[in-house]
Amino acid sequence: MPNPTAAMLVIGDEILSGRTRDANMHHLAGVLTQIGVDLKEARVVSDDPDAIIAAVRGLSATYDHVFTSGGIGPTHDDITADCVAAAFDRPIDVRADARALLEAHYQRSGQELNAARLRMARIPDGAALIDNPVSTAPGFTIENVHVMAGVPSVFRAMVDSVLPGLTGGQPLISDTLRIERPEGEIAGPLGEVAKAFPDLSLGCYPFNKDGVLGANVVLRGQDAAMIGQARSQLLALFA
Amino acid sequence: MPNPTAAMLVIGDEILSGRTRDANMHHLAGVLTQIGVDLKEARVVSDDPDAIIAAVRGLSATYDHVFTSGGIGPTHDDITADCVAAAFDRPIDVRADARALLEAHYQRSGQELNAARLRMARIPDGAALIDNPVSTAPGFTIENVHVMAGVPSVFRAMVDSVLPGLTGGQPLISDTLRIERPEGEIAGPLGEVAKAFPDLSLGCYPFNKDGVLGANVVLRGQDAAMIGQARSQLLALFA
Repeated sequence: MPNPTAAMLVIGDEILSGRTRDANMHHLAGVLTQIGVDLKEARVVSDDPDAIIAAVRGLSATYDHVFTSGGIGPTHDDITADCVAAAFDRPIDVRADARALLEAHYQRSGQELNAARLRMARIPDGAALIDNPVSTAPGFTIENVHVMAGVPSVFRAMVDSVLPGLTGGQPLISDTLRIERPEGEIAGPLGEVAKAFPDLSLGCYPFNKDGVLGANVVLRGQDAAMIGQARSQLLALFA
Repeated sequence: MPNPTAAMLVIGDEILSGRTRDANMHHLAGVLTQIGVDLKEARVVSDDPDAIIAAVRGLSATYDHVFTSGGIGPTHDDITADCVAAAFDRPIDVRADARALLEAHYQRSGQELNAARLRMARIPDGAALIDNPVSTAPGFTIENVHVMAGVPSVFRAMVDSVLPGLTGGQPLISDTLRIERPEGEIAGPLGEVAKAFPDLSLGCYPFNKDGVLGANVVLRGQDAAMIGQARSQLLALFA
């Protein structure tokens, strides 16, 4: 059975303007690979309702899971929850369970649950809350879309809350061979080995470090024995 | 006149598997913002011909410019050039001008221009070459798509080659105000200021640094005087 597929949707002008460097995509890619969910696509869109709604609909229809990052805070530019609700034609409003979480949190910290903060309790009808042990305001899952915060520490905590509920597949095993010869010299034989192992993916990533030209050849697949065989062939060719 | 729009397409399994963290998107976002080209979307797709072809077609039809990164080296997994040619139904083969560049380069370095390296001279019919002062093998521009290498130093050099030929717009001016109050406290008044300046984009990015809860409010727009007015209003509210 093929592995479940996933896409990530990063929402935020701050990434596309170059102000902030996204850190969540790399984190999500790593943890999904570990549990055998294949991240097939990632997108970054701006804080624009039409762009967010179109991306949520398109990715949700194409992949088994969609993970979003960003735009669920208390300020006017946090429009992700409303856009996701719109994408699925669901009503959205302050929900009692999310409100109760925020009330308890702000009571503990002696702060006021004002109108802006209450926006973080807006949850589309039928969504399941995602636990946020870092700063309380929850994410949510609706259909196959997991809506999470953009702040990296909160994003990671929410991913940890979501993962146990996912059905993974065969984890991808990966093995890296460092070859200190220029990529252009090993490319021909490497291509032959790649052809001989159609169930593996062989990637070749050149480097130029301290004057040494070389390439990291990465073998990826689900069958450790097969990866071992391919590795042996590469070693025989290039060692 | 609105600014020209752009999208970026990052091609590579190594990003989606979490092996490599993309660095090119952040660089491109910064330089495009400086010249007034609005980066509206970024996508990462895997080394899959159908995915690459569909993304090139979709993004090329939607935005004024598309910048791709990755997949134009000498190895079997470098399939970007062929996919871009397919996306525009153009023939692709080794082209004399690109071949001449590679011949001179490998002659200088005393290396062989073998079949694998010659793959880097495959250029779609009608494309213009993009200069690569770092490692010679060129990128190319076809229609509104600029095809560049994934290795960050080469990507940056190719971007530098492409930029002078682009028509920019009004550079986005951005001003950041650091406010040491929790985001949820400033959100209400901040939203009012945002409403009063519909031609500006006001982003709010919370931080929690050394125990201080605060937010960076970023004002973005093309009119420096207007940004100054909004800044004054924010200072009056929060200073």
